[in-house]
Amino acid sequence: MTPTTGKVTLLSAGPGDLDLLTIRAANALARADVLLLDDLANEEIATLAPNARVIRVGKRGGCKSTPQAFIQRLMRRYASKGLHVVRVKGGEALLFGRAGEEITDLRAAGIEVEIVNGISSGFAAAAGLGLSLTHREHCQGVTFVTAHLQDHSEPDWAALAATRTTLAIYMGMGRIEHVCARLGETLAASTPAAVVQWAGTSRERRLLSRLDRVAADAAAAGFGSPAVILIGDAIGEAEGFAQAAREWVYSTHERAA
Amino acid sequence: MTPTTGKVTLLSAGPGDLDLLTIRAANALARADVLLLDDLANEEIATLAPNARVIRVGKRGGCKSTPQAFIQRLMRRYASKGLHVVRVKGGEALLFGRAGEEITDLRAAGIEVEIVNGISSGFAAAAGLGLSLTHREHCQGVTFVTAHLQDHSEPDWAALAATRTTLAIYMGMGRIEHVCARLGETLAASTPAAVVQWAGTSRERRLLSRLDRVAADAAAAGFGSPAVILIGDAIGEAEGFAQAAREWVYSTHERAA
Repeated sequence: MTPTTGKVTLLSAGPGDLDLLTIRAANALARADVLLLDDLANEEIATLAPNARVIRVGKRGGCKSTPQAFIQRLMRRYASKGLHVVRVKGGEALLFGRAGEEITDLRAAGIEVEIVNGISSGFAAAAGLGLSLTHREHCQGVTFVTAHLQDHSEPDWAALAATRTTLAIYMGMGRIEHVCARLGETLAASTPAAVVQWAGTSRERRLLSRLDRVAADAAAAGFGSPAVILIGDAIGEAEGFAQAAREWVYSTHERAA
Repeated sequence: MTPTTGKVTLLSAGPGDLDLLTIRAANALARADVLLLDDLANEEIATLAPNARVIRVGKRGGCKSTPQAFIQRLMRRYASKGLHVVRVKGGEALLFGRAGEEITDLRAAGIEVEIVNGISSGFAAAAGLGLSLTHREHCQGVTFVTAHLQDHSEPDWAALAATRTTLAIYMGMGRIEHVCARLGETLAASTPAAVVQWAGTSRERRLLSRLDRVAADAAAAGFGSPAVILIGDAIGEAEGFAQAAREWVYSTHERAA
């Protein structure tokens, strides 16, 4: 029997809660022969792929991990055998997370690549905060940016701030103080800011603050990775923001007294 | 009998294909009493809400439409009666589309608001083109921006271009020539560009080009709204881009001969 043609599905697992998967993603999982599971994706997703061999290929920044080249080799190997490989990626596959390199590599090997979109944690964070990322009274758009660059340089924070778009900063918790200080050279100290850790999961935690104190507030409250940092006037529309701001003023007065 | 407490779900319908809805969205639709249907959302979504009274509240830029204030009044009225109102919005509710105003209005009226995320057309466009919006060899992020501002002014295109993020421009087809000319003051004329019309639907159409000719190419090929315009070096990773670029060079030589 001739083996059927294999393919790789780059599947966006969304932020965590399984019901934030798309129906298309659930269908692809049900048909998967091999599941490559990122450690930013919810492990329970494997229950949706009952026929698949599950291989964990977590790859956290700085931690012991499966090298990217090995993950790519695994995908090529199984797809070449005629299997349907589903590469599960946390959030939206096309926003950070090295899908670009994987697509290039698979295309070069002549392997069919299918992409299934999903919900990125920045959108889940906004839903949790009860706000639009692009409230038309405050901004004209939103910029998703990673603080963790390939060559260990950093984004041009002044240029990003100058756009006056809402900023959704990924992988920024390790340098939140520095990032906010740089943004503060362009944006007002009082610019609304928020941190949402584990957005779109049962563990979601939210912090409302402002640019000049969000790093200290996040540290004091024990916020760490994975989290999205949101900065911009639109963040001031978060549910409870006005109340939180009144409390800062109060506590500031208290300290001054 | 005391009426149960009503609420409004702002539901992201995604770009069009029903299987791009999240499972959470499908569940909310199944429980809906009243469905308010945007005309950018796929009409067939109503089939997923068998118990709901369906009200069409389309509101296309420039066309005859249901005023925003009336839509907000409808939501408040039905939710106040204890009904579960599902306000269906095309794409991702928290990216453009006036969710910000609706949330503010409902919150002021003391009505519970639930937000269900979805797939925005910019991500569906990238999936169709087979590329990551943030390919790490090309950029550090992506900016979603609307060319259609509330006060009829325009975004600061120079500032946006200076970020070197991929630009995903919504509602820009009516002024694509102007937008590309402004971006061309900062970005190279050869910067890869694409237009995807009806992204994530069975009617999806894609055009690959470059900044200095995408407006003319889109006009020649009859591309119109709704479409996403994508600009940036990451777009050069689209499937078939190298081939398309060879053809431009060829046709340029031909014209010169």
